[in-house]
Amino acid sequence: MIEKGIDCGSLIRSMGEAARSAAQVLAGAPSAQKAAALEAAAAAILADRDTILAANAEDMARGAANGLSPAMLDRLKLDPARLEAMAAGVEAVAHLRDPVGRIIDETLRPNGLVLQRVRVPLGVIGIIYESRPNVTADAAALGLMSGNAVILRGGSEAVHSNRALHAAFAAGLVAAGLPADAVQLVPTQDRAAVGAMLRAQGLIDIIIPRGGKGLVARVQDEARVPVLAHLDGINHLYIDGAADPAKAVELAVNAKMRRTGVCGATETILIDRAYGAPLAIVDALVKAGCEVRGDKGVAALSPHVDTASATDWDTEYLDAIVSIAMVDGLAGALAHIDAHSSRHTDAIVTEDAATAEHFLTGVDSAIVMHNASTQFADGGEFGLGAEIGIATGRLHARGPVALEGLTTYKWQVRGTGQVRP
Amino acid sequence: MIEKGIDCGSLIRSMGEAARSAAQVLAGAPSAQKAAALEAAAAAILADRDTILAANAEDMARGAANGLSPAMLDRLKLDPARLEAMAAGVEAVAHLRDPVGRIIDETLRPNGLVLQRVRVPLGVIGIIYESRPNVTADAAALGLMSGNAVILRGGSEAVHSNRALHAAFAAGLVAAGLPADAVQLVPTQDRAAVGAMLRAQGLIDIIIPRGGKGLVARVQDEARVPVLAHLDGINHLYIDGAADPAKAVELAVNAKMRRTGVCGATETILIDRAYGAPLAIVDALVKAGCEVRGDKGVAALSPHVDTASATDWDTEYLDAIVSIAMVDGLAGALAHIDAHSSRHTDAIVTEDAATAEHFLTGVDSAIVMHNASTQFADGGEFGLGAEIGIATGRLHARGPVALEGLTTYKWQVRGTGQVRP
Repeated sequence: MIEKGIDCGSLIRSMGEAARSAAQVLAGAPSAQKAAALEAAAAAILADRDTILAANAEDMARGAANGLSPAMLDRLKLDPARLEAMAAGVEAVAHLRDPVGRIIDETLRPNGLVLQRVRVPLGVIGIIYESRPNVTADAAALGLMSGNAVILRGGSEAVHSNRALHAAFAAGLVAAGLPADAVQLVPTQDRAAVGAMLRAQGLIDIIIPRGGKGLVARVQDEARVPVLAHLDGINHLYIDGAADPAKAVELAVNAKMRRTGVCGATETILIDRAYGAPLAIVDALVKAGCEVRGDKGVAALSPHVDTASATDWDTEYLDAIVSIAMVDGLAGALAHIDAHSSRHTDAIVTEDAATAEHFLTGVDSAIVMHNASTQFADGGEFGLGAEIGIATGRLHARGPVALEGLTTYKWQVRGTGQVRP
Repeated sequence: MIEKGIDCGSLIRSMGEAARSAAQVLAGAPSAQKAAALEAAAAAILADRDTILAANAEDMARGAANGLSPAMLDRLKLDPARLEAMAAGVEAVAHLRDPVGRIIDETLRPNGLVLQRVRVPLGVIGIIYESRPNVTADAAALGLMSGNAVILRGGSEAVHSNRALHAAFAAGLVAAGLPADAVQLVPTQDRAAVGAMLRAQGLIDIIIPRGGKGLVARVQDEARVPVLAHLDGINHLYIDGAADPAKAVELAVNAKMRRTGVCGATETILIDRAYGAPLAIVDALVKAGCEVRGDKGVAALSPHVDTASATDWDTEYLDAIVSIAMVDGLAGALAHIDAHSSRHTDAIVTEDAATAEHFLTGVDSAIVMHNASTQFADGGEFGLGAEIGIATGRLHARGPVALEGLTTYKWQVRGTGQVRP
């Protein structure tokens, strides 16, 4: 064990030093060169299709033998259509506007000093993730386009898929004349490597965990490097007394059922008592295949509704299950959301503009919505081109994180010899 | 010890819960109300002058008895002029532009959704600091004006001064109709209270340590709450071969000697061999009362120069001592800075615009300057009105942190019933 720890420590140190050197090159690389690397990587993904799919088949076979759940196997699986979508995603990132070098603001001081805040890359980003191999492509593409070096540590289930995808990025970087070390994949599944990444102060500038609660909790607990975490999405759809009933039904079904496994899915629907009995909403959800758990009032409406337990209001189902509670107007909704929301995405359905504004101001979540499905909580849908995750913390970046969220800024001060009195 | 730990844990929990409630009120408070609270607090500082100075005299007497150094006693000391400056500083913050509610950007999506990123307060800020009582006023003023609740934990040396100053803020809040719990002072000097603050996830949103290396290192090591740290300022002034000699001398003396105890003071001067022997610079520094430690070439210039040891290049003197090294042009300066800078503030003196731009781009520090004294590294000098510190990390805020750095944003999405296909 001690031997392993020492090996992982020096492994991560040498990877971190290589990443730092690569990051210095990337920080000064023009947008076109970074885009060329991504375009070459996308082309390599398509050209290496057979190799990547064969590697993925190996992971799938081992996963099936190890008894991975169908949901996990589905997340792991690549097929030609998914690979094409992945390559298209990498290409799309190459066409996003490069945030590096952008001037955030400029100030002329009375003493003649000119101050500019200029966007620069974060530096070296460590990504720790689980079974989905497309995180490899997303993280490499976003990290690289924003001028950062990335150190990827994927899950053991996807080890062959990740190696094959990583090779495409290494090829893309080299083709564009950039250092291959700008995108590195940790070559061991030893968990000590994760611990070494979490303690690599000075070598890794930020850790982004992507995965389930257990992974994120471990990262947050052990990390000495700053963490940009996305936690669970216990999202609410509040249907106000002034809601349009047709919109209410359509939004409830879409917010819950469009895809139940995404973090933007609604988990709890709150209904204003002034809206009246939500039988149409319950029926539409049941018809769409959703299990409904309601408070007493809702449970009394339909034989299809089970009574919710206290834990339901704090549960991220990520499944075709919804909890529904009646509340006393906006104040009741705000109190329930304040007590139970994970501060990811919460929405109101109402035709009353003033109530909507109170909700948008009063709910303290990364994303708040009026008359829109919580399923829109997604970097692509927000026009960011892609996302590396949806941050639920309050520091640095909040909500969908894409290129800008992977940068910081420096202050450039230009003078003519000013000294401070 | 266990008893103490439990007490501090529940103390911080109840303070955190009170702060959270106050933060919810503050988040929705109009700018004018927050400004009124600060104006009332500034008035109370002046009105309570005698009480505050008496409390400070008690701290000073105890500090002298406990053998505090003259420098520490000077940091602790309040007098009528310093109190007036403090009150004026609080008033000045009341007149700064409130960042809360500011729209960062707006996007209209093809599906008709309108997205806005809107600035909101961070929430509850914990400030852990050492002997300077003016941190109490700065942190309370900036925290409050940016809509945050603050929990202050000052050093034991300043306990009476801090209590008296805190009372002025409590009075100001109440006078403006805001909750007094928006600014709380931890009532115990038990170090377990600091530990409890560092682990108060969910109650404290960010910890800002202000103090020496030991304090900041402890906070960074123990904290489970995100930390906005300012570390040491090992700052460089690089005098390029194309520097104007008169500017070079004036900037070197000012950057090092204007005030030697501030984090923006220059600690190392790098001189391009093409500039020639820097005897005039050495002489001016010696004449200004500075001890000069040079590399071999510099030490050979003058009997007043000692030879620097290897540790000098990594030392923040915060004193009238400077290290000087000769380097080979810009590349030599960049290499030295990359190896030794604490990434706080680094400056170049040159008349060559292209060299200056290469320096400003190539040096990866929070603040980079051309033909200006590093002593300008200060929120007030940057036009931010004040500062809570100069952040040397890469996440969230970098360089001087004032009102905007104490906010985050939320995404507000406005639709007309859009569902995601």
